[in-house]
Amino acid sequence: MELSLFNILDILGTIAFAISGALSAMNRRLDPFGIFIIAFVTAIGGGTIRDVLIGSTPVTWMENIIYVYLIGLVTILAIVFRNKLFYLKKSLFLFDTIGLGVFTITGVETGIQNDLNPIISIALGAMTGTFGGVIRDILCNEIPVIFRKEIYATACLMGAFVYIILFDLGVDPDIIYLTTSLIVIGIRLIVVKYHISLPSFYLSSGRKSN
Amino acid sequence: MELSLFNILDILGTIAFAISGALSAMNRRLDPFGIFIIAFVTAIGGGTIRDVLIGSTPVTWMENIIYVYLIGLVTILAIVFRNKLFYLKKSLFLFDTIGLGVFTITGVETGIQNDLNPIISIALGAMTGTFGGVIRDILCNEIPVIFRKEIYATACLMGAFVYIILFDLGVDPDIIYLTTSLIVIGIRLIVVKYHISLPSFYLSSGRKSN
Amino acid sequence: MELSLFNILDILGTIAFAISGALSAMNRRLDPFGIFIIAFVTAIGGGTIRDVLIGSTPVTWMENIIYVYLIGLVTILAIVFRNKLFYLKKSLFLFDTIGLGVFTITGVETGIQNDLNPIISIALGAMTGTFGGVIRDILCNEIPVIFRKEIYATACLMGAFVYIILFDLGVDPDIIYLTTSLIVIGIRLIVVKYHISLPSFYLSSGRKSN
Repeated sequence: MELSLFNILDILGTIAFAISGALSAMNRRLDPFGIFIIAFVTAIGGGTIRDVLIGSTPVTWMENIIYVYLIGLVTILAIVFRNKLFYLKKSLFLFDTIGLGVFTITGVETGIQNDLNPIISIALGAMTGTFGGVIRDILCNEIPVIFRKEIYATACLMGAFVYIILFDLGVDPDIIYLTTSLIVIGIRLIVVKYHISLPSFYLSSGRKSN
Repeated sequence: MELSLFNILDILGTIAFAISGALSAMNRRLDPFGIFIIAFVTAIGGGTIRDVLIGSTPVTWMENIIYVYLIGLVTILAIVFRNKLFYLKKSLFLFDTIGLGVFTITGVETGIQNDLNPIISIALGAMTGTFGGVIRDILCNEIPVIFRKEIYATACLMGAFVYIILFDLGVDPDIIYLTTSLIVIGIRLIVVKYHISLPSFYLSSGRKSN
Repeated sequence: MELSLFNILDILGTIAFAISGALSAMNRRLDPFGIFIIAFVTAIGGGTIRDVLIGSTPVTWMENIIYVYLIGLVTILAIVFRNKLFYLKKSLFLFDTIGLGVFTITGVETGIQNDLNPIISIALGAMTGTFGGVIRDILCNEIPVIFRKEIYATACLMGAFVYIILFDLGVDPDIIYLTTSLIVIGIRLIVVKYHISLPSFYLSSGRKSN
């Protein structure tokens, strides 16, 4: 069972999102299995939607047992070191951001490998990056990350955009991967640190939908 | 890249649902990318569930770049003309209803083309029609349309039912499409105008589920 | 149209979850079509996610009309006998538990038939068992079953685990099916009767996620 660079990135994102899921679940005071399940769904959510939309089934985590073991291990470690993770402050934010950056790459990569239009590959990258976190937040009854004030999916889209440009220029994959994830993670860090947000548009009165 | 009648209907529904998604997102005061994402997910949701359930992958919007451009354009226009749309009152209702009518057709059509049982094609039509709106409402934290007082999915089921009957009678596709969408849209318009609702059934006491 | 043992189990789970969905929907005072739709989505949810993840499309309920008829019939009966069901107390709990037990089996079975790793088959079993109920609860705005105090998904995982062990021992399928469902259902019954719950872990202060 050999791992490609794609698998390695996928596993990195899986670990990061699993930690963020476990932290959210502990916030909700779930029991160990509940924590595992939230960690699992958060970790595989993005990759699963990517695989299902593209028609690559059985989905990635089903064909490689390493994902299940990793998420189990991460869950145990997150439970044991839960207070350490707390003192690291913002750890939920950090791991969510790493997962976002890495899964954006695997989404764009999948699009390219399936000969999809570059713009569509960007969209697939954004979905792959954000979907796990959205599921986590819906299940844990938090306001979904993509709706919070700070720029979120936008970071994803920008990273994916740069990926496509570098790819067209024929840049080495390793450099593309590194650049893309640094852009996504960098934008998120700067944006949250300085409370940068895009302007919002709203309807001119308190209109309620039908 | 030529467009079939199927694609044209799909695009019409996409535009209508994109507008309804953008309006909902502006109601929530999201930033431009947030508005785009809600518009996107609302617009492609129904078609995506249709394609995934039937196994037609990569899903439709991935193989035709026009969907992404259209939703982007619709989002920009919806933001620019947001107050005009407000003065049109009920515009969210209207566009949601158009999307519902058109996507019901593409769902039933897909069922027939895949040799599914007519009853199952009706179910697929109802799912394709309602799924985008349900996702939009869950993400925007509104009460999902299918649960509001007025007849909603029922309009969808009736339109799909008539589609199947006309199809069995060998009626010309164009006439089937027109009739079906008019039925779905007509039922919705009448039902909302006159506040018609079906009787509801409930359990005899304030029993709470387990 | 002949039914395999797999189909029969799938149908049993479908009926049980359809009843639980109809009861939840009546709790929400939906109209008959709303009740049908919740019953339908609850009943097919687990099997649909199983089929989509594994790439077995069109999904099971699309290729066999019996599912749609059954859910329709169950919905009508649930409406007619709604007060009888109420007097049976805990009926929502009971039917949810039966569906959980039976769908766990079809999930594990699907994993094995697709030559997936046993551990992954267990995960697929747990997802197939719980997904319908989770959708039902999200749509009906209840706290998802997997997050309530009592052991839920854990029962599923234990049943699936025993399934794999018996399968490795070469035990007769019928006995495996019976044992697995009795374990899942038995654990749930005992756990709810005696209010058994696993310990929960939480972070050492009222930390809010980012």
